[in-house]
Amino acid sequence: MIKKFINARLITMEGKPEVIENGTVIVKDDKILFAGKGEDASKAYDGDADIENDCKGNILMPGFKNAHTHTAMTLMRSYADGLPLQDWLTQKIFPLEAKFTGEQIYTFTKLGILEYLTSGITACFDMYLAPEETARACSDMGFRCVQCGNVNNFSSSVENMERLYDSLNNSDPLNSYILGCHAEYTCSEELLKDIASLAEKKKAPVFLHANETKKEVDECEERHGKKVITYLDSLGLFNYGGGIYHGVHVTDEEMDILEKKNISVVLNPGSNTKLASGIAPVTEYLKRGINTALGTDGPSSNNCLDMFREMFLATGLSKLRDGNASAVPAEEVLKMATVNGSDCMGLENARTLTAGQQADMVMLDMHAPNMRPVNDVLSNIVYSGSKSNVLMTMVAGRILYESGEFPHCDKEKIYSEAENIQKELGLL
Amino acid sequence: MIKKFINARLITMEGKPEVIENGTVIVKDDKILFAGKGEDASKAYDGDADIENDCKGNILMPGFKNAHTHTAMTLMRSYADGLPLQDWLTQKIFPLEAKFTGEQIYTFTKLGILEYLTSGITACFDMYLAPEETARACSDMGFRCVQCGNVNNFSSSVENMERLYDSLNNSDPLNSYILGCHAEYTCSEELLKDIASLAEKKKAPVFLHANETKKEVDECEERHGKKVITYLDSLGLFNYGGGIYHGVHVTDEEMDILEKKNISVVLNPGSNTKLASGIAPVTEYLKRGINTALGTDGPSSNNCLDMFREMFLATGLSKLRDGNASAVPAEEVLKMATVNGSDCMGLENARTLTAGQQADMVMLDMHAPNMRPVNDVLSNIVYSGSKSNVLMTMVAGRILYESGEFPHCDKEKIYSEAENIQKELGLL
Repeated sequence: MIKKFINARLITMEGKPEVIENGTVIVKDDKILFAGKGEDASKAYDGDADIENDCKGNILMPGFKNAHTHTAMTLMRSYADGLPLQDWLTQKIFPLEAKFTGEQIYTFTKLGILEYLTSGITACFDMYLAPEETARACSDMGFRCVQCGNVNNFSSSVENMERLYDSLNNSDPLNSYILGCHAEYTCSEELLKDIASLAEKKKAPVFLHANETKKEVDECEERHGKKVITYLDSLGLFNYGGGIYHGVHVTDEEMDILEKKNISVVLNPGSNTKLASGIAPVTEYLKRGINTALGTDGPSSNNCLDMFREMFLATGLSKLRDGNASAVPAEEVLKMATVNGSDCMGLENARTLTAGQQADMVMLDMHAPNMRPVNDVLSNIVYSGSKSNVLMTMVAGRILYESGEFPHCDKEKIYSEAENIQKELGLL
Repeated sequence: MIKKFINARLITMEGKPEVIENGTVIVKDDKILFAGKGEDASKAYDGDADIENDCKGNILMPGFKNAHTHTAMTLMRSYADGLPLQDWLTQKIFPLEAKFTGEQIYTFTKLGILEYLTSGITACFDMYLAPEETARACSDMGFRCVQCGNVNNFSSSVENMERLYDSLNNSDPLNSYILGCHAEYTCSEELLKDIASLAEKKKAPVFLHANETKKEVDECEERHGKKVITYLDSLGLFNYGGGIYHGVHVTDEEMDILEKKNISVVLNPGSNTKLASGIAPVTEYLKRGINTALGTDGPSSNNCLDMFREMFLATGLSKLRDGNASAVPAEEVLKMATVNGSDCMGLENARTLTAGQQADMVMLDMHAPNMRPVNDVLSNIVYSGSKSNVLMTMVAGRILYESGEFPHCDKEKIYSEAENIQKELGLL
């Protein structure tokens, strides 16, 4: 199956972000066959296309990578807003999650995927309670998902994580799995050491929540006499790299470790704002060359799964933090939302619009008033762009969202299943 | 002409914001004839409707009021991003504006109105260079616009403002005009006193930019030995009320004046974020009962005209500022974005969905994944809502935007005119 897209403003995200006018993209099955100037396309392929789409100057670019989320928490969207992180977790979320079954998680993951597609997100880095159900939802929806281990003192185990690592990395190519645990404050030292041993055995990176709130970093220091990252690193957790989700409250000493050990930071500015956790030192991360990606966090703490909001906040909050309107330019934000995400998620084959890569691509509307006039396309995307501009979202060559519709999925059926589960759980 | 909307989740915004399930709204010509429970509708009107719309559980609520903007600055969207306020104004914006003609302003105002409609905005409080051209654009588009005087040392005059006040308040009912000037730092004391005299003569409120940056408030104190609001009030500028745009850096002493003189504050969180100006003390404003509205500011400093972004930021930034996830609840934000805006803009007839009011109304999609599940409709709008949820925008009973289309307007013609002007001004 050949799909050809012509007359696009093409942003391949290979190297420095820039716009190729009159671009063409040719997709063969699940891969990019050609992406570049229209005039060069026939050298790569001069046969017929099954589908030819005139983009009329609209943008084609790699899909956004939501590098930290808990997708199935769509269940708890707008549930218990207005609480600080610890109260919200212990009083509201944990009791509800204790009743949340695998089948229910399957449905609410599908609901979250619908929302990802409307925001041009083609892959997520998910951490949640029932990894096999999450994987099943992603396979059924045709969505790309990297899952992260969720081990902690209360659920899952290192043995279970090893089993998931082996099985989910060898099944549907849309699904993959990375070692990880919930957070320092929910894992015993023994457990963290066991995870480090598994990382050593697999020669694999480890991800976890870290340095999200002031309270968390203070309490780690009380418990262990060390800063969070210093402590985790001392246990060997990052010997094969990895990453932290949030990274709001990080000292210079910890940044040295992030830099030296090639540890990524996944920013979650929407969630950190809504839960009043703080603003991450993004300028410092960029200055040190630390790989910095972007995530929405779960839809219960954000509350939406919208990479356009995260992109504006990633630069906007940094400008406020630094007192500098030049902080974190648009091109850096676009890298965070795309290639930097792929890099920490192990998606080296779904990174850029380049021949041979997976065809994970979005089309953004340049005929919407918020994208006019055209003074600077990259600025338009980051500062003015909105999910309302997403005309098409393609994963592995399949169009999963187009012109407001989901061609392979009955959204109302998912809404109705979600409502039934709300009733079962006593929320309605 | 009778238009009937049934099966809506109705938020009238009369009193405390709440949702009426199975609501009906009947619009007769430019006014609301009935808005309430479906079962009560026939008491108000039991005849036929020219148009009957089944809302299928979607939200009907008053349109958003963008209470501070410079609409025609769409010209400068994504132009010179990344500069602090003073450099951005003096090096980039002012030189370009010096070449900007009335006819050009007419076109770029129309471009901005298209964008307002996509975000459910039914009225704006505009301050710009060619008020009669702005009014003409709004009349031609059927859009409601309150303009604010723009007098300063370099352009316009008090005499011109009086002429505009008399003419624009007595022409097309979609257009109105409020006294105002640019800012303390661009107006001589003599000019400010003349404006205060005109306010006295008309017994009318005065609006202006104030307390936006730290630099501005420090320089006012150096010049006049007084804080900005204290200084302006000492000249009699607020003897009939009025308001300030921005209100980021405000002392307790100045808040006392805001409270006593019934002066509104129009927040511009998107712009204050992008220009690194700071975070306004919103919690303190609400505690004091100061009328607090929301605006996008101009599309050159924001860069988009999206009230959903402003709503999230109004509460989110306050949570960060206060270190309190409970700060500024969703209901307060919805009031800011609707009735509080009407109150400061003198739109007492376009405030709520109530019989006799102007039919300025929006329909928001509850069948989009970001609005599901339905745990709390008001939270969904403020924390998860997006312009992608705007299904319909109606001003004075006319549907100006529906399902992504502008039924009374050729958007491509406006884009093409805008592009021609970019070329004339040397931007392309």
